[in-house]
Amino acid sequence: AMDGAPPPTSPTGLSAYVAVSQLLGLTLLATTGAWLGRYRGGVAWHSPLQFNAHPLCMVLGMVFLQGDALLVYRVFRHEAKRSTKALHALLHGLALVIALVGIIAVFESHRTKGIPDMYSLHSWCGMAAFVLYLLQWLLGCGFFLFPGASFSLRGQYKPQHIFFGIALFIVSITSCLLGITEMLLFKISDSYSHFVPEGILANTLGVLLVVFGLVVCYVLTREEWKRPPLAEEMALSMDFKTLTEGESPGG
Amino acid sequence: AMDGAPPPTSPTGLSAYVAVSQLLGLTLLATTGAWLGRYRGGVAWHSPLQFNAHPLCMVLGMVFLQGDALLVYRVFRHEAKRSTKALHALLHGLALVIALVGIIAVFESHRTKGIPDMYSLHSWCGMAAFVLYLLQWLLGCGFFLFPGASFSLRGQYKPQHIFFGIALFIVSITSCLLGITEMLLFKISDSYSHFVPEGILANTLGVLLVVFGLVVCYVLTREEWKRPPLAEEMALSMDFKTLTEGESPGG
Repeated sequence: AMDGAPPPTSPTGLSAYVAVSQLLGLTLLATTGAWLGRYRGGVAWHSPLQFNAHPLCMVLGMVFLQGDALLVYRVFRHEAKRSTKALHALLHGLALVIALVGIIAVFESHRTKGIPDMYSLHSWCGMAAFVLYLLQWLLGCGFFLFPGASFSLRGQYKPQHIFFGIALFIVSITSCLLGITEMLLFKISDSYSHFVPEGILANTLGVLLVVFGLVVCYVLTREEWKRPPLAEEMALSMDFKTLTEGESPGG
Repeated sequence: AMDGAPPPTSPTGLSAYVAVSQLLGLTLLATTGAWLGRYRGGVAWHSPLQFNAHPLCMVLGMVFLQGDALLVYRVFRHEAKRSTKALHALLHGLALVIALVGIIAVFESHRTKGIPDMYSLHSWCGMAAFVLYLLQWLLGCGFFLFPGASFSLRGQYKPQHIFFGIALFIVSITSCLLGITEMLLFKISDSYSHFVPEGILANTLGVLLVVFGLVVCYVLTREEWKRPPLAEEMALSMDFKTLTEGESPGG
């Protein structure tokens, strides 16, 4: 802890919401695993089950880990900004690697089965989300992690980074819901309308994805739960003391 | 204009973003109309084409009008708060009525064709969005339009109203994307993967819906574009002079 930092207490309610988000995140993984394991034969790489790695990787990477990466500034409110920033970048990086594995799974599976790529709305939204997420990560590293960008340039980019970060998280969840709908209509189109257990389970996964997104976005946007700006500005100027010496913190 | 109100100028960029949002909204309607007219036989009520009223009403009500209702506080920045509030409630009310017509269209069409209701993820998300949107509208009228709620109660509810308002707008757009995917897989499942024009057009509609959502949410969340708080508080306290006399504006 730095000298002059506020005492390490979290606002009332924040911890409860974060705990709920983590329980929801684990429930997402369990529900995805249950769907694939119970109804879709499980997950394996060099096999006809390779496709099933796709939903599992995307829910883990593009939803759970991406969501947790967004939450680190709320959870680690009193740690050094530099460490929290590194964790933020690391979790997003991990999410990207896992998502890439999930994307490779579907492309290889399509090639094996002779199915065309990138024709559906799910693939358009999902690929756009992934490519822009990678771009956002590169821009974030360039502006905030490496010491090249000036203090004022960072200040200008930060609101855009936050807006597009939340937007990409939401588009990622939307893409998952589109994927669930596609998979159900490919696999159980005849029985889906008869409320079979697989349909109910996969619909429930979709609803849980929306609820996870709501809880994470609620935590992120609640004004009183934002990281105290004083500590933030101090850490920002400390990180770049050498570059910004004599420059006053602004905007 | 009230005495002491700021001069009626809009922040740079806001007008351009609002203009783009309106062009996008009209393009959404045109694209939906083109899809239904060119490939799905058009729209009619007492006919096998009744289903087609569903996508048209939902895009018009739950997306375009809902989005425009969210934008009124940014567009009419210098009008009396009371009028802007009435317009906000009116546009949401109109959106709800049009969405209800769209919901009736799909239920009647299902009954005619013997298709079960409410089994798909699209129907779960869409119905949840509609019911919660109606609830949000009733709560909004109760708290902000009728003179029952105290000034402090309004202040407490307002951030929730804003968060859930934006969340419902996003879930509405997500539901549209799920509906597009369902409709394509029901109608052109054999040719969708061959990049037929109908598939490309409907995918493009999905992408345009996402872009419309992004532009509206960007306008709504940009800090400098929010309605000036001074005018807002003045209008709030003016609206409820009789109830809040002597109470100082807060939080």
